[in-house]
Amino acid sequence: MASRPTFSRTNSNALPIPSSDGANTIEIPSSRSAISDAAALMHNLSLSPSMKERRSSRNSFGTSLPIPRSPRHSRLGSQRTGRPEVTRDILASQVQDMSKEKVEAAKNMAFAFDIDGVLAHGPEPIEEAKAALKILNGENELGIKIPYILLTNGGGKTEVARCAQLSEMLETPISTEQFIQSHTPMQALSEYYETVLVCGGEGYKVREVAETYGFKHVVHPKDILAWDPTVSPWRTFSEADRKDAKPRDFSKMKFDAILVFADSYDYATDFQIILDLLLSEDGKLLTRAKDPLATRIPIYFSQGDLVFPTNHKGPPRLTQGAFRIAIEAQYKAMTGYELERVVYGKPERATYTYADEVLKHWMEEIHNENRLPKNVYMVGDNPQSDIIGGNMYGWNTCLVRTGVFQGKEGENDANNPASFGVFENVLDAVKAAMRKELGHDFQLKWNPKVNPVLHGDESSAAVE
Amino acid sequence: MASRPTFSRTNSNALPIPSSDGANTIEIPSSRSAISDAAALMHNLSLSPSMKERRSSRNSFGTSLPIPRSPRHSRLGSQRTGRPEVTRDILASQVQDMSKEKVEAAKNMAFAFDIDGVLAHGPEPIEEAKAALKILNGENELGIKIPYILLTNGGGKTEVARCAQLSEMLETPISTEQFIQSHTPMQALSEYYETVLVCGGEGYKVREVAETYGFKHVVHPKDILAWDPTVSPWRTFSEADRKDAKPRDFSKMKFDAILVFADSYDYATDFQIILDLLLSEDGKLLTRAKDPLATRIPIYFSQGDLVFPTNHKGPPRLTQGAFRIAIEAQYKAMTGYELERVVYGKPERATYTYADEVLKHWMEEIHNENRLPKNVYMVGDNPQSDIIGGNMYGWNTCLVRTGVFQGKEGENDANNPASFGVFENVLDAVKAAMRKELGHDFQLKWNPKVNPVLHGDESSAAVE
Repeated sequence: MASRPTFSRTNSNALPIPSSDGANTIEIPSSRSAISDAAALMHNLSLSPSMKERRSSRNSFGTSLPIPRSPRHSRLGSQRTGRPEVTRDILASQVQDMSKEKVEAAKNMAFAFDIDGVLAHGPEPIEEAKAALKILNGENELGIKIPYILLTNGGGKTEVARCAQLSEMLETPISTEQFIQSHTPMQALSEYYETVLVCGGEGYKVREVAETYGFKHVVHPKDILAWDPTVSPWRTFSEADRKDAKPRDFSKMKFDAILVFADSYDYATDFQIILDLLLSEDGKLLTRAKDPLATRIPIYFSQGDLVFPTNHKGPPRLTQGAFRIAIEAQYKAMTGYELERVVYGKPERATYTYADEVLKHWMEEIHNENRLPKNVYMVGDNPQSDIIGGNMYGWNTCLVRTGVFQGKEGENDANNPASFGVFENVLDAVKAAMRKELGHDFQLKWNPKVNPVLHGDESSAAVE
Repeated sequence: MASRPTFSRTNSNALPIPSSDGANTIEIPSSRSAISDAAALMHNLSLSPSMKERRSSRNSFGTSLPIPRSPRHSRLGSQRTGRPEVTRDILASQVQDMSKEKVEAAKNMAFAFDIDGVLAHGPEPIEEAKAALKILNGENELGIKIPYILLTNGGGKTEVARCAQLSEMLETPISTEQFIQSHTPMQALSEYYETVLVCGGEGYKVREVAETYGFKHVVHPKDILAWDPTVSPWRTFSEADRKDAKPRDFSKMKFDAILVFADSYDYATDFQIILDLLLSEDGKLLTRAKDPLATRIPIYFSQGDLVFPTNHKGPPRLTQGAFRIAIEAQYKAMTGYELERVVYGKPERATYTYADEVLKHWMEEIHNENRLPKNVYMVGDNPQSDIIGGNMYGWNTCLVRTGVFQGKEGENDANNPASFGVFENVLDAVKAAMRKELGHDFQLKWNPKVNPVLHGDESSAAVE
């Protein structure tokens, strides 16, 4: 059973920060760029000083972000690709004998892909993405697999459910062991908090997510509405909502933390309940703290993007960052104080550190070597999360023109230029990266002469 | 047809302010207390300097708030009380002969009542309110009617619909000519703007309100969803919604202004569409202005309360002020600039000035004298709107304990003390005010000896 966290209270205004109890977590100091989410819609406007200032302390000062020590011990469950390990191992070893340098180079590279605006637009796949993944799955002159992980600020359903959906959409098996969504690293928080309010996403799906992560008592805002609909005056609570609700006597329950996992489907209710808890006496509904700072419970957001790309033909749509900014302003209006909060997701360092853990593990799956490749290529569409984060973390960054980024042809982002360049789409980025690492003559078709062992082997990665 | 307003542009950052074209409007300079809506939930916390600063300029600097010149010319329609004028005129004149001083005093007083937390809790009447209104309708020793108006920050349906509902709930006829809700004075804006986005309230009711006010082209956010559901990614647009929607080709339409009339029933969609328009090129959807300040269209909010009393057993619930604060923060995050906006409703001076217009008119209905009474008593539950506004306007203010105000027994509000005192409920306030003006021996029962003319007259104000 989870142990309650010990809090570091440097001053009464500080957010209670869980201190690592040496369990299965790593704690990463939070970091954030001075020009994070806000710039997304600013186009030709220059940042005003007030903006730079407002952005400079992105997370609460001194906050640490716990992440799981290793995905091996994760509670995410696993979904294997179709091919048994042994095939890959034989493949890797035998290929080594064929053309050593290229193979060594190939085993020293990996990709991290954003999803929305890079591989897909909402439910629609981006066609070039399918071709790009085929190349990485072995459709290249070596017939060798190149490791890649998916690193998205999306969320709201379990990793298993999302990977099943992606596998079908992209027509290639995506394993939960190569997948990180915004709230995946937040499973580490289950070692610190037992009773949590979990917000965002469709229906009650985030409840299952939080339970998968090991939180003992998971409360959904609609559970609270089912207990007392007057909490949210204008919300009509349908029978469908009530069917899956788990009302309890929330006047007796003490909440330990608030977790926002995805975009809210009911801003008014989520605002009201989150503020009720932030202003409450030690996390108890229907109470008001005399000094809200002294007994405030912590709040965590799974990502900070202000906007994200969808299939809408206008500008990108608002997402969790806009929701968070609204809560911060309402909290300040009610108390006069800034809200202390913690934000996960790109471009937070913690998310990239966790990505390394996943990447090491996936390298072992693909190449049977538990280590980080020398050259990691991040392909993203949002300069303010994908690119700035990758740059800060020392990855090669590729900015594509199929999502949030609205720059002109041949233009890089002014504030956060992609280190490896700007590309029309993910396929162009993957081709450029492979030719950089494997030579400009490297063939992006499987060549049986180079790798006869796979000749005619229908189960191989090389044949489609 | 409405003439487009001429704008006073003192600087590029200024909100376009309609300048009166000498038509049927009065322009009132906006005014606001340094501690307006924010304090509502602050309890024992003192205002931080940043708060005071943030609050001190409540409306955009230099903004004028147009209000209708006279309710006689209003487009609100009218709903008469049961009794014909003639009865009232005879009553007034004949009573004058009976006990002159008391009658003169009675004709020099009037009441302004807030509704939520004073006369009702949501759909439930407050019992003492019925008794209080009976007294004012003539159940007093003179059998004389005392004028009263209803002054609420509520809204979302037409004045006619709301008065019908109130008449039934309070068991006394309430005329639209004695009723002012948050957006009532905003009908004056129809002289300045033709095409408006109107937000808030249930279903499509605010569309009817805006059309009653004379706006030529009224667009509801759901009209826009019906045209393109991808505008709001997570909103499921039901067939019921679609039934009454009026989709048009909004890519061709130029919006003149944004009007928020009531609490949003769909924050996410309203946030998105309002920000789309505020950031657009001259009020056209799907566009983004190079310089959003140069071509920004104006936005008006019908009231500024942060919270309001409901039948919820916990603390008061969030209302339009919290919605506005969220938009302001999101706008600043996207542009780096403060949002210029205009707020109507209590405690804005414009709302009280309009109340005077209505009161004069209603005095004529009751006493056949078109003038303001010397002593106006405002009865409200919210120190930050009802009381501060009444105090600023020179009314006698009564704070009741049946709504937002949470002070201890016998305690007045620290920041905005009610000038006439704190009362358990509206009936105690009305009794105290009448005894103050008419003498402590004044009887709150009709006395046939004092006013024999009404003896046995079933149609009189005195008999219930």
